[in-house]
Amino acid sequence: MDEARDRVLMGPERRSMVVREADRKVTAYHEVGHALAAQLLPHANRVAKLTVVPRGRAAGYMMPDADDRLHVTRPALEDMIAVALAGRAAEDIIFHEITTGAQNDFQQATSIARRMVTEWGMSDRIGKVAHATDQGTYLGGGAQMLPMSEHTAARIDDEIKTLIDAAYTRATDLIGEHLTRVHEIVSVLLTRETLTGEEFAALLNGETLEPLPPATPSTPPRIAG
Amino acid sequence: MDEARDRVLMGPERRSMVVREADRKVTAYHEVGHALAAQLLPHANRVAKLTVVPRGRAAGYMMPDADDRLHVTRPALEDMIAVALAGRAAEDIIFHEITTGAQNDFQQATSIARRMVTEWGMSDRIGKVAHATDQGTYLGGGAQMLPMSEHTAARIDDEIKTLIDAAYTRATDLIGEHLTRVHEIVSVLLTRETLTGEEFAALLNGETLEPLPPATPSTPPRIAG
Amino acid sequence: MDEARDRVLMGPERRSMVVREADRKVTAYHEVGHALAAQLLPHANRVAKLTVVPRGRAAGYMMPDADDRLHVTRPALEDMIAVALAGRAAEDIIFHEITTGAQNDFQQATSIARRMVTEWGMSDRIGKVAHATDQGTYLGGGAQMLPMSEHTAARIDDEIKTLIDAAYTRATDLIGEHLTRVHEIVSVLLTRETLTGEEFAALLNGETLEPLPPATPSTPPRIAG
Amino acid sequence: MDEARDRVLMGPERRSMVVREADRKVTAYHEVGHALAAQLLPHANRVAKLTVVPRGRAAGYMMPDADDRLHVTRPALEDMIAVALAGRAAEDIIFHEITTGAQNDFQQATSIARRMVTEWGMSDRIGKVAHATDQGTYLGGGAQMLPMSEHTAARIDDEIKTLIDAAYTRATDLIGEHLTRVHEIVSVLLTRETLTGEEFAALLNGETLEPLPPATPSTPPRIAG
Amino acid sequence: MDEARDRVLMGPERRSMVVREADRKVTAYHEVGHALAAQLLPHANRVAKLTVVPRGRAAGYMMPDADDRLHVTRPALEDMIAVALAGRAAEDIIFHEITTGAQNDFQQATSIARRMVTEWGMSDRIGKVAHATDQGTYLGGGAQMLPMSEHTAARIDDEIKTLIDAAYTRATDLIGEHLTRVHEIVSVLLTRETLTGEEFAALLNGETLEPLPPATPSTPPRIAG
Amino acid sequence: MDEARDRVLMGPERRSMVVREADRKVTAYHEVGHALAAQLLPHANRVAKLTVVPRGRAAGYMMPDADDRLHVTRPALEDMIAVALAGRAAEDIIFHEITTGAQNDFQQATSIARRMVTEWGMSDRIGKVAHATDQGTYLGGGAQMLPMSEHTAARIDDEIKTLIDAAYTRATDLIGEHLTRVHEIVSVLLTRETLTGEEFAALLNGETLEPLPPATPSTPPRIAG
Repeated sequence: MDEARDRVLMGPERRSMVVREADRKVTAYHEVGHALAAQLLPHANRVAKLTVVPRGRAAGYMMPDADDRLHVTRPALEDMIAVALAGRAAEDIIFHEITTGAQNDFQQATSIARRMVTEWGMSDRIGKVAHATDQGTYLGGGAQMLPMSEHTAARIDDEIKTLIDAAYTRATDLIGEHLTRVHEIVSVLLTRETLTGEEFAALLNGETLEPLPPATPSTPPRIAG
Repeated sequence: MDEARDRVLMGPERRSMVVREADRKVTAYHEVGHALAAQLLPHANRVAKLTVVPRGRAAGYMMPDADDRLHVTRPALEDMIAVALAGRAAEDIIFHEITTGAQNDFQQATSIARRMVTEWGMSDRIGKVAHATDQGTYLGGGAQMLPMSEHTAARIDDEIKTLIDAAYTRATDLIGEHLTRVHEIVSVLLTRETLTGEEFAALLNGETLEPLPPATPSTPPRIAG
Repeated sequence: MDEARDRVLMGPERRSMVVREADRKVTAYHEVGHALAAQLLPHANRVAKLTVVPRGRAAGYMMPDADDRLHVTRPALEDMIAVALAGRAAEDIIFHEITTGAQNDFQQATSIARRMVTEWGMSDRIGKVAHATDQGTYLGGGAQMLPMSEHTAARIDDEIKTLIDAAYTRATDLIGEHLTRVHEIVSVLLTRETLTGEEFAALLNGETLEPLPPATPSTPPRIAG
Repeated sequence: MDEARDRVLMGPERRSMVVREADRKVTAYHEVGHALAAQLLPHANRVAKLTVVPRGRAAGYMMPDADDRLHVTRPALEDMIAVALAGRAAEDIIFHEITTGAQNDFQQATSIARRMVTEWGMSDRIGKVAHATDQGTYLGGGAQMLPMSEHTAARIDDEIKTLIDAAYTRATDLIGEHLTRVHEIVSVLLTRETLTGEEFAALLNGETLEPLPPATPSTPPRIAG
Repeated sequence: MDEARDRVLMGPERRSMVVREADRKVTAYHEVGHALAAQLLPHANRVAKLTVVPRGRAAGYMMPDADDRLHVTRPALEDMIAVALAGRAAEDIIFHEITTGAQNDFQQATSIARRMVTEWGMSDRIGKVAHATDQGTYLGGGAQMLPMSEHTAARIDDEIKTLIDAAYTRATDLIGEHLTRVHEIVSVLLTRETLTGEEFAALLNGETLEPLPPATPSTPPRIAG
Repeated sequence: MDEARDRVLMGPERRSMVVREADRKVTAYHEVGHALAAQLLPHANRVAKLTVVPRGRAAGYMMPDADDRLHVTRPALEDMIAVALAGRAAEDIIFHEITTGAQNDFQQATSIARRMVTEWGMSDRIGKVAHATDQGTYLGGGAQMLPMSEHTAARIDDEIKTLIDAAYTRATDLIGEHLTRVHEIVSVLLTRETLTGEEFAALLNGETLEPLPPATPSTPPRIAG
């Protein structure tokens, strides 16, 4: 766990924030959904940390291992999309209702799918034609679509949706297959608030964690009913 | 009732403004429509206050309880839309004619419906694809639509309309079922001008309010025929 | 008659401007058309003044009573559109030919119809979806259309045209029913140049006005053949 | 003939410019075409002057009488379009070939037809809907089209083309009916270089002009073979 | 041959540039293609000079006589297009393969065809409607298209393509008819590098040119194998 | 091998960068794919150098001979596209999976194909019409599309895709025919890290390279497992 890195990426922890128990529970299932996909999909980066302590604008987060690959393959990108969507998939399976909390996940998943189709030549129907350029971008604002016909735009939209739909189905299936473990890990996560990648892997393996040292009295209670 | 909060959100009260009795009556039914939906729809925030005293640009307003949910569910969003539309629904049922007064309600309802479809992945036909980004926005101006085909744009428009239509039907049905209570509460609201959430709940429950202390003579009459 | 208000809204009178008699006659029928609709349509604001004296860019004008309604109903908006179109309708009925003089009337009528459809939820086919926002406007430039599909844009155009067509038919029928009175009032208006709302109402009622005091010699003749 | 006005509108005369005889002949027929339509169409402004002396960017020009009408009728606008197109119509009839010289005429004719359809409510198919506004214009750049659907845009294009086509046919028929006079007047115009409205009317009436006083020797020859 | 004019229009000669023999040959056939069309098409401006000496960005060029026509006819514009396309046509006939060297020719040909259709009223299907304006242009950037429907835009594209296709066919036919002469003239041009209009006309007439004076020794060889 | 030129075009070498062996292998096959196409396609520029040493943002690169052709033929452009796509083709054949590493290759290939269709008149269906201009560009940002109809835009998209698809098929076939050689050359490239054009040609010819002098001890190992 690298506090400095987390602070830069996610903003400071917000331990004083009062969070409803219902929200904590949704957050826990959401993050365990991400983590399960990251740990089990064959080409995904494994879990480095997951937490239900709010940080910046996030209610919680799952941080994967850093990625040192120069060439990212199509299966790896498909797994990235599935990891991004697995938070929503967990909410859907467990609560049979969905929330606004997956907005950034969808932006991330769509951005990868769009680049697969328009920049990386990974759609058979669109082919190896570049339909976006990173040369016109600035301030890190992402790729700019090149001029194209409505006909092509509609095909690109279809391909992006096909990629997203397939990844969501894979995430849903995966969580459905490990539902008992998901409930167990969520229970531990709600108590401990943060898990390392090793702890998550052990729990997923059916192991039990060492009990935590007693909480220091300086930490105020932060749970609202 | 928190005067400071209302002042920030809605502007100062405009008690000296001369309002036609017909307009006050429309405003009263409109606000009671909002309040009824807020109080009775299962996932809506309950009524904190409603009033027919003009404030800022509003002829009156209904203020719900503050929302402390991190994750807002689809049913809760659908109820928010229905609450926003219930003012117009009341006008339509009572007067069989509709007015310009619901413009902001429609903007609010459409904004929620649009985000459900394009940002929060809550439309089955559009799926979990992000079609808007909050990264390009500034000055709080709302989300920016990503490039998309006419085909996708038409489907998004359809989904938004479906959400709005369904919510309006629910609001209309709800008011139709409680029409007697609506007439009673409007009558009290026109006399007292402002109701707290507790007073509204009591009236909806069929109770009678304590009589008000006599008005101070410094308040000028503000009703025009 | 409030000269100060007219000056602000319409610019200064242009009594020295030489106007062809044919143009004065067209102007008179045009303004009496507006006035007849304003006086007789059930939800319109009544006539305050009408004149064939040019002012600012206008060849003449009809000024209705100020509107103090907070909530404007759909029938009232439909009457506003009909009042705006009644000038052209009069030209069409009387002269069987139409002129460029109704440009601002059409802009006003279209603006109301567009807001009914896109901001005020008054079209059943478009529904309660907001398709325009007044939040992006500046300098009083009117509403900004939100992003929408061609499909929706075509439906909105159809609804606007339907509203305009219906209002024009109503204005035409109304003038056709009161044609004798229209000729009489135009005749008086061409002589007196300006009528108050009371004078117009009296003439419409078949009454005769008091003769004017003799014109002061300082007024130069302003009619060209 | 008002040299000052011509100078302001058209730039200075360019008597020293060497013009090919073939171009002078085309110019003469082109300008007589404009003049014939202006003189004979029932609602057009009559001819004030026509010339084959280049001025500014124009190879020659026909100047109609100033227009003092406040209300311009549809027939008058249709005649304006026909006058603008009559120069090209003359070229087509006489030479059976057409030139680049009518570019400004087409812009003027199209601008009038567009305003008839989009601003002045003169197309039955488009109706009294305003589709352009002069409020967004600046620097005299003309009207700005309001947002509209492709469906409406196609109908507007059709209506403009219908107006232009009809006016061109009328101009062509008119010139065809007066072909002998056109040849006669062109012959005089090429000799005299400039005709007043009175002289043009006399020639059109079959009269003969008074012989000109002998040319002053200071005028250099300006005709190239 | 006017060196000063060529310098202004084309930039300085680049005699020191090393040019591959294959490129010189392509250039020679390309320029002779232009020249043949200019010399033989009935309404084109005749050849003033042609050369395979690079100048500015051009590998060679054909300069026609200056045009002093005020009114350019449709046949003359069609011939201009054919002259512009004749360089590519020659490449296609001789080498059965085509190169990037005709880019500016296509821009010029398309620009003329576009103006014929959108500014000069020379397409029967589009008619005398102006679809472009030169009033919004600046920095000599060409005409600005006026707002139009997709329907009209597609028709304009079709008309432009029809004009270009017809002109290309005419250019191809013309070169095919004079293929022997083309080979002979190219052979002389590759030796002499530059031909005047008179020399080109003589060669086309089957005459033989006077031998050149011996080359001065200061000219370095500029041909690469 | 010209270090100065490589530095300008590609940035400095990044020998200290730690690269995963899997990534080095993908890079090697990718670059040998480019090189094979460059060496064997009849109109391509031959290989000058290829390397798996990262430089700037590139994981490796293949540098062809400089191109001194003034006129680039259609077959040469088609070969350029095939060379650009051959890196991806090699990945696809060898690993049966594809990576993000071909993004710039697709941009380059698409840019050439787009210019063939829209600037160089090389598509029979689009013809010799210019649909892009390099006159509106700045900062080397490439051509600007001219206004066109959706109909034309769709045809242009189709033609670009057809060119890209055909070139990719050719690249794939070529690599498939020389698969044994590709494996051999990759093996040498991974050991030596850089090959000159002569060395590559020799290897392709089945020859063996001279052994390298022993590595200097100052070079740190740069391979990560």
